[in-house]
Amino acid sequence: MNLLQTRWEELADIKRVLAKRDWFPGTSGNLAIKVDHDPCSFLVTASGKDKTIETNEDFLLVNALGKPVNDTHLKPSAETLLHVEVFTKTNAGCSLHVHTVDNNVISELYGDDGSITFKGQEIIKAYGLWEEDAEYTIPIIYNHADIPTLASEFSKFVKKDAGAVLIRNHGITAWGRDALEAKKYLEASEFLFSYHLKLLSLKALKVTI
Amino acid sequence: MNLLQTRWEELADIKRVLAKRDWFPGTSGNLAIKVDHDPCSFLVTASGKDKTIETNEDFLLVNALGKPVNDTHLKPSAETLLHVEVFTKTNAGCSLHVHTVDNNVISELYGDDGSITFKGQEIIKAYGLWEEDAEYTIPIIYNHADIPTLASEFSKFVKKDAGAVLIRNHGITAWGRDALEAKKYLEASEFLFSYHLKLLSLKALKVTI
Amino acid sequence: MNLLQTRWEELADIKRVLAKRDWFPGTSGNLAIKVDHDPCSFLVTASGKDKTIETNEDFLLVNALGKPVNDTHLKPSAETLLHVEVFTKTNAGCSLHVHTVDNNVISELYGDDGSITFKGQEIIKAYGLWEEDAEYTIPIIYNHADIPTLASEFSKFVKKDAGAVLIRNHGITAWGRDALEAKKYLEASEFLFSYHLKLLSLKALKVTI
Amino acid sequence: MNLLQTRWEELADIKRVLAKRDWFPGTSGNLAIKVDHDPCSFLVTASGKDKTIETNEDFLLVNALGKPVNDTHLKPSAETLLHVEVFTKTNAGCSLHVHTVDNNVISELYGDDGSITFKGQEIIKAYGLWEEDAEYTIPIIYNHADIPTLASEFSKFVKKDAGAVLIRNHGITAWGRDALEAKKYLEASEFLFSYHLKLLSLKALKVTI
Repeated sequence: MNLLQTRWEELADIKRVLAKRDWFPGTSGNLAIKVDHDPCSFLVTASGKDKTIETNEDFLLVNALGKPVNDTHLKPSAETLLHVEVFTKTNAGCSLHVHTVDNNVISELYGDDGSITFKGQEIIKAYGLWEEDAEYTIPIIYNHADIPTLASEFSKFVKKDAGAVLIRNHGITAWGRDALEAKKYLEASEFLFSYHLKLLSLKALKVTI
Repeated sequence: MNLLQTRWEELADIKRVLAKRDWFPGTSGNLAIKVDHDPCSFLVTASGKDKTIETNEDFLLVNALGKPVNDTHLKPSAETLLHVEVFTKTNAGCSLHVHTVDNNVISELYGDDGSITFKGQEIIKAYGLWEEDAEYTIPIIYNHADIPTLASEFSKFVKKDAGAVLIRNHGITAWGRDALEAKKYLEASEFLFSYHLKLLSLKALKVTI
Repeated sequence: MNLLQTRWEELADIKRVLAKRDWFPGTSGNLAIKVDHDPCSFLVTASGKDKTIETNEDFLLVNALGKPVNDTHLKPSAETLLHVEVFTKTNAGCSLHVHTVDNNVISELYGDDGSITFKGQEIIKAYGLWEEDAEYTIPIIYNHADIPTLASEFSKFVKKDAGAVLIRNHGITAWGRDALEAKKYLEASEFLFSYHLKLLSLKALKVTI
Repeated sequence: MNLLQTRWEELADIKRVLAKRDWFPGTSGNLAIKVDHDPCSFLVTASGKDKTIETNEDFLLVNALGKPVNDTHLKPSAETLLHVEVFTKTNAGCSLHVHTVDNNVISELYGDDGSITFKGQEIIKAYGLWEEDAEYTIPIIYNHADIPTLASEFSKFVKKDAGAVLIRNHGITAWGRDALEAKKYLEASEFLFSYHLKLLSLKALKVTI
């Protein structure tokens, strides 16, 4: 199996697992994995497909501008430009974007604050932070309908080889040096969102009783 | 594979995916896909079956009146008349009806308003609306026990080739030009319902703290 | 395939589908399907097994007293006596008992009332009630630790060939003339429990805003 | 199949079932099963792996100090020392540690109390308690970042061959004499956590109406 095939399989595995969780409602979400550095190329999900189905047209190879490398009738996902920022500004190898109910609710509840910070939670170790008082902040950006504008705003928070950014009332983009790390950042973030929302409810109600 | 078989497979794929989400509780729900235009015929789920099971009697072919085209012991779903409205009034190719807890709760909470409107949410793009301030309204109709009366009320809101209507304390019917679009409308609507209910709770509770 | 094998397969299918929903937490739950009328015999789940696993020791044949028909090292589920009531007092062919979070919460919230009544909900048709104002009442009984006492209390509400009874802070038992109907009663009840709890929350919170 | 292989399969089965429930977010969680008594050895999950994937490097054999028995590039899970306490202080044969939203919320809501007690719930029978008024207490300990300190604190509550301990804002460790019992303790605890949180919400809200 050559490198392209290996990366295809890695991305297909992630797509299958996330699809089982219904994390791609209404054909939403898009996934990307780097294939080469110089010149930069990466596989990205083709636009508008039902991600519960597996085909040999699920992904296409694009360049550092997010344009198809080969002649194809497939269109890269509309938000490919965000993955371009991840792959050109950092050493990340994989970048994942999904819509979930909980990441959307968090993004709206804390959108005016511009970010949400988690601390005192074991799962923060997934971000590579091992201290007892470690905290992790996820920025929340405005959901510009114009993708280049959104990518430009998103780019401000793409500084490290692994990270996560929420787009308000839209979804999360999480990335890492490889598929495993990107998925780890994504899952840790979703866990923290769900945990935070449930704890917020229960604390409010426990006070009320 | 002829056209009938192709459509059968498409509908079976949707049935399988939605069954895994438990969207057909108590044998509820029904699905339809157009096979021919002139004269109009479509496949519809047979009445009273457990939709977690796959058999060669899951669907039957009916005409523009919702009556079986061929001699059969199978009965079309009780609500076939609603799919008839979709296929005879528009160019839709697929129509899906499911009961979920969240679509039922939304239909009851906003039933007196006669509709619910969503805006400022990325997933609204699933309805083909790309503007930043786009909004999408889903009508909520009364759940008449008499199906012809229900179909007649439902028909008032069947105007475009893709759409969605809530029936109060009953479920949603979503349709589109093909299976992919119908499923996209259905999933986007369910996402918005779940998102709305969770945000409503959290906002109320956040105020309480 | 003889009758015993056919019934075994039917019960195994239900077990598999319900196990996927995690409706058998901590080896809880038990399932039964009638094999013969006269003398009455039925298959029931063996005690203490993990129901996410499939083996040829999942069920055993018992008689009208709930005792094994054949020599076996398997023990029938502790609550086999409840299924005995169902099969000896009615023409039911299948009886299902599961623990879910929502059926337990409903049973505790409405336990003092002795029952909960649903109306104005489409899914009530699953109980064979087709009128617009139809209502369905599910009794809630005390969870006696002594199984014969529990079975005796349960028996008071076993009158029809299909039905459902909640045991407080324990679970639901639903039955029907065949596997399909028993599963339909079970799923309709679980849907109504989840719907009711969510609507109750949202209505309370909507008032608060 | 020799004993090592048998135990490997048992642990792989549990890993598969729990992974389907998404109980290993962000590569979290770790599982252990005893292979031999004297000298003590057990299989434990290798560190940092995605537990939705199955490989022949998922587990490694460690000794009574939690150190690899054989030469290997694999590292035992960071929290292997907790499983060491379980296997050296009791006759337990299996020990499971998972992070779920609900066990984390419970651990935070009741963390200051140092424990949570359940009673009047049928599923308490999963802990081997059959009396009508039986109650079961799960200790909640502080989440020390230093694992030996955490293991030492944890050890205070490891007294019986089956049990469960919550680590605040971290997760649960449940163990039993064999894989079946460990899983039963784990599932019963998760059921009780989810039930308790939902009932707490609903009771508070029911009063509000």
